[in-house]
Amino acid sequence: MVTLDDVRAAASRIAGAVERTPMLHSRTLSRLTGAEVWLKFENLQFTASFKERGALNRLLALTAAERSRGVIAMSAGNHAQGVAFHAARLGIRAVIVMPRGTPNSKVSATRVHGAEVVLEGDTLADAAAHARERQARDELVFIHPYDDPAVIAGQGTVALEMLEQAPGLDALLVPVGGGGLVSGMACAAKALRPDIEVWGVESKAYCAMHQRLAGLPVAVGGDTIAEGLAVRDVGELTLAMTRALANGILLVEEEAIERAIVALVEIEKTVAEGAGAAGLAALLEHGARFAGRRVGIPLCGGNIDSRLLAAVLMRGLVRDGRLVRLRVNLPDVAGSLAKVATMIGEAGGNIIEVQHQRVFDAASAKSAEVEFMIETRGRDHAQAIQDALSRL
Amino acid sequence: MVTLDDVRAAASRIAGAVERTPMLHSRTLSRLTGAEVWLKFENLQFTASFKERGALNRLLALTAAERSRGVIAMSAGNHAQGVAFHAARLGIRAVIVMPRGTPNSKVSATRVHGAEVVLEGDTLADAAAHARERQARDELVFIHPYDDPAVIAGQGTVALEMLEQAPGLDALLVPVGGGGLVSGMACAAKALRPDIEVWGVESKAYCAMHQRLAGLPVAVGGDTIAEGLAVRDVGELTLAMTRALANGILLVEEEAIERAIVALVEIEKTVAEGAGAAGLAALLEHGARFAGRRVGIPLCGGNIDSRLLAAVLMRGLVRDGRLVRLRVNLPDVAGSLAKVATMIGEAGGNIIEVQHQRVFDAASAKSAEVEFMIETRGRDHAQAIQDALSRL
Repeated sequence: MVTLDDVRAAASRIAGAVERTPMLHSRTLSRLTGAEVWLKFENLQFTASFKERGALNRLLALTAAERSRGVIAMSAGNHAQGVAFHAARLGIRAVIVMPRGTPNSKVSATRVHGAEVVLEGDTLADAAAHARERQARDELVFIHPYDDPAVIAGQGTVALEMLEQAPGLDALLVPVGGGGLVSGMACAAKALRPDIEVWGVESKAYCAMHQRLAGLPVAVGGDTIAEGLAVRDVGELTLAMTRALANGILLVEEEAIERAIVALVEIEKTVAEGAGAAGLAALLEHGARFAGRRVGIPLCGGNIDSRLLAAVLMRGLVRDGRLVRLRVNLPDVAGSLAKVATMIGEAGGNIIEVQHQRVFDAASAKSAEVEFMIETRGRDHAQAIQDALSRL
Repeated sequence: MVTLDDVRAAASRIAGAVERTPMLHSRTLSRLTGAEVWLKFENLQFTASFKERGALNRLLALTAAERSRGVIAMSAGNHAQGVAFHAARLGIRAVIVMPRGTPNSKVSATRVHGAEVVLEGDTLADAAAHARERQARDELVFIHPYDDPAVIAGQGTVALEMLEQAPGLDALLVPVGGGGLVSGMACAAKALRPDIEVWGVESKAYCAMHQRLAGLPVAVGGDTIAEGLAVRDVGELTLAMTRALANGILLVEEEAIERAIVALVEIEKTVAEGAGAAGLAALLEHGARFAGRRVGIPLCGGNIDSRLLAAVLMRGLVRDGRLVRLRVNLPDVAGSLAKVATMIGEAGGNIIEVQHQRVFDAASAKSAEVEFMIETRGRDHAQAIQDALSRL
């Protein structure tokens, strides 16, 4: 098992090459959740995630001979960028294997740091098999994304910094993919402050750690916005450490993750990816458990595609009733659209889109169904507009 | 004129009640612009802008009698929130006058801090006239958004912090609305480091400071995403200070502001409003002037509506060719849509939306025009998809 000394050694080894990210208290999120919320901005790392810490600590533990031969990793995500960036900086050859379907944005975000990116295999398992084969053939060192003591010790430095920046924290809410971050943070935090609570956070669709801890078979899958949490299974070392050190796992719904991303943009003016917002999602869903207590949340990654972020923001407006869709049956006479549009405008609604159609659902062949997308001030205002239209 | 001592006094007066916001070096923006870029995250203030600094410094300069009567301000933006929040915190009555058309999000963002919000007047000028009248009647102190020495001194504290956090800066790029921020920052920075350059940044549509400095008539107007820069005219004190202290004004196009907002989200994982991104926009447009030099940019505000941010992100994808619209004429036979959709998929394009229409522009009554919105890996990939379709 990794110890506090390992984490401290990692901290001094990686100092200066990894950002000491800001930690800020959020008054508004505190008011909304009932807890005292502290956010650790790990999304402000150079490659926008905490993964650099573990990757760099592992790279710095290589022998001279290993360094000269190079390293290999299998990841389509933040681990790939962390390894690629620091290996290039240290002049170490890095091969990154990704499955063939990996979005090009992720390939180029890794290639730009100077890594050799190899697209092999249709699944993560196939890609991993290829990576192992290539590792043996080229005598490279495999850098595991989580189940490695040096990687875990590196991730633990997040907790060291958080406890220095806000010494009075009562609990940490830590997103769990393979379990590297929660293992490292729990190890450091519990050694420094035995009374602190450390909770892992998983999405309901991908809750392998929860299932393993409960002795259940691992069954995960489905679409999720939190790609960083979508891991087939946790590690053996991370499982043992989480079992020994963490207080438990909190599960979050997909919708809570989306709500957390929106809250971070609208309130905190910061961009978190799904996995990066999962800690706040857990507080939004399980707030009662933390009422009045000081809760530290690492915003552990910020790599979210712009189109996805735009969609999440728009879905947030729909959820809050700030964007609504109203269908109106209009008689097929000149001026009827103008009449409805005027009414919506007078009620304070801002029309964003209009669709007109005459074939499906229209009440008669002489009428048309018009669908308005309207921006409102919120649910009550949307209802008032609807009421005004129903008096038509 | 405001002096360095005034700014230093403001800094000690407001310390603890206003965030000392982080300042981070950006490797990626440095690579993109050719300058060494330092960002000051003023968007992480509680009300998400630097305006709190000046507002609070002015409030703390009130006499006991003035405090007991209260203050009034005219603003639909960040100044309103800054005054409202700190007045409420200090137990001072605050009346905020906004024009009647002000979006409700801005009204409620101000009201939530406990201010009395009064909606009066159809224009900013009418609202200002009402505020002056109300000020006289209720014997309130008018807190000017920029043309006030105490406000300017408060804004100057941004420069004090920036020069402490990155002492080697060669230039500051400072957004200019009414000129309070650039006046305060220039005053502090030039006194501490006479060799530093301080540039104001205005949008081309609202460049009153540029026009006044050049002796031109002030002529501003038009739609802009940078509402915080959209000021009818600058102040007299801020004009005099800017003339005496700043190196000049850089003008930016609306598109550069949008590109800066997108870069801050995609690269820096932070949310800036239009005015908040204007400093980076100036570096994107005028990069040659700052090549190899250390440039400090205050991200001075983060209050951007979610729908607007989503639209800016999507427009950014279109600008980069990552989202394209292709029109195809299809024969009206079963299977023709499937054939084109398959071809797009095989070329690696991700179809987001499809629109089918048969009346306008279709080549014959027996064909249909289909418009695809497609996500691509960038301009070259979009061209490759288009080439594949043209071989149809």
